[in-house]
Amino acid sequence: MEDTSEMVGRAFVDHYYHMFDNERASLCSVYRETSMLSFEGQKIVGDRDISSKLLQLPFDQCRHVISTVDSQPSSPGAGGGIVVFVSGSLHLPGEEHHLRFSQMFHLIPTTPGCFYVHNDIFRLNYG
Amino acid sequence: MEDTSEMVGRAFVDHYYHMFDNERASLCSVYRETSMLSFEGQKIVGDRDISSKLLQLPFDQCRHVISTVDSQPSSPGAGGGIVVFVSGSLHLPGEEHHLRFSQMFHLIPTTPGCFYVHNDIFRLNYG
Repeated sequence: MEDTSEMVGRAFVDHYYHMFDNERASLCSVYRETSMLSFEGQKIVGDRDISSKLLQLPFDQCRHVISTVDSQPSSPGAGGGIVVFVSGSLHLPGEEHHLRFSQMFHLIPTTPGCFYVHNDIFRLNYG
Repeated sequence: MEDTSEMVGRAFVDHYYHMFDNERASLCSVYRETSMLSFEGQKIVGDRDISSKLLQLPFDQCRHVISTVDSQPSSPGAGGGIVVFVSGSLHLPGEEHHLRFSQMFHLIPTTPGCFYVHNDIFRLNYG
């Protein structure tokens, strides 16, 4: 039986990459002022700047294919957040080869059943 | 200038993989009863079982080479933990090719300047 963190993690991952691939401007809604993104080593803080960064990536269309999702409750007590670790590949139009990536999210609860992304770390896998 | 989370993250990563490669039994000390490890999708809870898993991996000697370390404070308030995202490669004796991996840790403070690993997610990167 899957635990709650696994279910939330998978639902979030489906939601996030669906938005990324279809309506990237909406991604702003999952971040807050205190959110952080480390994108290939570049650190960006705040929903607005994170959203700008994601919109300015050098491709307009893309498709994420998810290989693995691992989720765990992130705090020892109850009511805490969830860490989600994703591996997958990024497919760009006209490119024969896809880019493998790993990404982690730390989801923090707001209202019951709702979360925002406090931490987001993205790295392409080389090699 | 590096921020505190980056400094703590790097120091932890150096410490962790040094122990892994030289005195793997000591790794038990960085985990607690509530700690979680997801190792290639297998979920293990508690310092003892995590330590057993790491000791039972099918190689006695190994060497981790770290490529990137990204760290961020994991909570909106002060005094919180740190999420650390690592990419690197695992070298085994007698093997020509190394194994690329990604791993994330969530460090939670105990006493000032001290942390334990609450979350640990490890995945090999397949090509």
